[in-house]
Amino acid sequence: MNTSAPHTDFSEAPIRTIAVVGLGLLGGSVAKAVRRGNGGESIRVIGCARREETRQFAIENGFVDDVTSDHIEAASQADLVLIATPVDRIADYVIEIASQCPRVLMTDVGSTKFRIVEAVNCVPEAASRFVAAHPIAGSEKTGLQHACGNLFVEKTIVITPSGKEAPGVIDAVTRFWQSTGGRVVQLTPRRHDDLLAVTSHMPHLMSSLVANQLPVEAIPMIGTGWLDTTRIAAGDEGLWTAIVSENRDAILDALEHTAKNLGDLIRSIRSQDDDSLMTFLRDAREKRESAKPTPTLPQ
Amino acid sequence: MNTSAPHTDFSEAPIRTIAVVGLGLLGGSVAKAVRRGNGGESIRVIGCARREETRQFAIENGFVDDVTSDHIEAASQADLVLIATPVDRIADYVIEIASQCPRVLMTDVGSTKFRIVEAVNCVPEAASRFVAAHPIAGSEKTGLQHACGNLFVEKTIVITPSGKEAPGVIDAVTRFWQSTGGRVVQLTPRRHDDLLAVTSHMPHLMSSLVANQLPVEAIPMIGTGWLDTTRIAAGDEGLWTAIVSENRDAILDALEHTAKNLGDLIRSIRSQDDDSLMTFLRDAREKRESAKPTPTLPQ
Repeated sequence: MNTSAPHTDFSEAPIRTIAVVGLGLLGGSVAKAVRRGNGGESIRVIGCARREETRQFAIENGFVDDVTSDHIEAASQADLVLIATPVDRIADYVIEIASQCPRVLMTDVGSTKFRIVEAVNCVPEAASRFVAAHPIAGSEKTGLQHACGNLFVEKTIVITPSGKEAPGVIDAVTRFWQSTGGRVVQLTPRRHDDLLAVTSHMPHLMSSLVANQLPVEAIPMIGTGWLDTTRIAAGDEGLWTAIVSENRDAILDALEHTAKNLGDLIRSIRSQDDDSLMTFLRDAREKRESAKPTPTLPQ
Repeated sequence: MNTSAPHTDFSEAPIRTIAVVGLGLLGGSVAKAVRRGNGGESIRVIGCARREETRQFAIENGFVDDVTSDHIEAASQADLVLIATPVDRIADYVIEIASQCPRVLMTDVGSTKFRIVEAVNCVPEAASRFVAAHPIAGSEKTGLQHACGNLFVEKTIVITPSGKEAPGVIDAVTRFWQSTGGRVVQLTPRRHDDLLAVTSHMPHLMSSLVANQLPVEAIPMIGTGWLDTTRIAAGDEGLWTAIVSENRDAILDALEHTAKNLGDLIRSIRSQDDDSLMTFLRDAREKRESAKPTPTLPQ
């Protein structure tokens, strides 16, 4: 078989079976969303997880039709593989699966995109069948037990094509993601990472900074404001260390911008410049009120 | 009549009528909570608001029994006055009402306490009948239309006695606040403001910093993490400028601590010190998970 398949158009290729590598919150939610067939045809889902109890939970709770601990065994039966592992392992999976499974399409759920796409681009047979994706949906909670089939409904799914895809691959992967209920938008990988540094990665770190400053004796004084502001600080430290590692430069830019603005804010408050403080707070309120990406959903 | 009433014990004084000066989210919620009588006797509530439409809304929606635009008229009929105005006007109201209404007890809902108590302490006849309070409950939303009678149920109500209260005043005000459904705790005014700088005031400003950094083109990339982290940034800028003004030093301490920690975080990330980053994120997660002041309530 010709592993590079250069003359195939994938846009008409049906996606009847998918493999999900990594059965956590996101992998499980995609599995549930497409397996029940959101108005279209149902898809057969093969789940791949290292832990026996995860595989058993996935079968018993209807996330998947079949399970395995071997990602190549899963991928070799599939039309599309979803890599839903921590971000620092995604590119290796894509490259290995591409080398072993010559027809399969691939996508992922990683919160960063540039380094993944850059790594995959070095291997043409992988790049030709991979479209990186990031569903802007999730939770501070991790694990299959929190997965749900409507996690992506009306959420933004960013895809970041590399330009190296075989004909039809972007269309096929776009249709797959639309079948989860999400709205697919395209960005370059660099642009995605720069924007997400500001909308997600920097806010996560600021949330952690606020949480870390809580003295034990202040716990009874906590209100809903503190709880909301620090909710995402409850996220898994391993996942987030990997995200920072993958998007280090953009995150540093965003944090340095924050540090500069914090310095300006401190100077305004110290000098009793209440006009500047009022303007800062009004601008923030207006930004917050303008930011309603999916107005049909409750915030 | 002896306006200082030095020999009266207020602990047995019944509270049958209250005046609420300022019918916003907090004043309206207290009115509703005590008027319906949370398991005890119902209390007559006289609402005081400058705007005719607020007074009308309060009557029509059952927040109060009677309304007026004159706080002295309201207070002169009451056993207790609740001052529920922005923090920078509370002390003046307390002092004026004390001078005109010789028997009335007074409390407030301000988010800061030290400067209010300090100002009231300069006037013995006001200090003898005032117990400053801060219910740790609220919302980024303001206005009577968002008030509700169960806002304080199982929430912490901090009272910050000055030591200048007449006998029984602290007991009477404590019982009043307990009748809203809240749990009353005592702190010194200084301690309250120091703790609230860390649990509320600094987090509010950090939330505003994060909101302010959003570029318009990133709005479609916003997820629930950004929305939660910035929810309180939608608060009213006038109220928050006043809060900063009243608790400037403690807020500056908290912000400078944050700025130092942010500098350390930036250095860890820049130097690729993933062990430090992992520790920082783990500590934050553990702090967040430990911080459940009212475990019986949903977060």
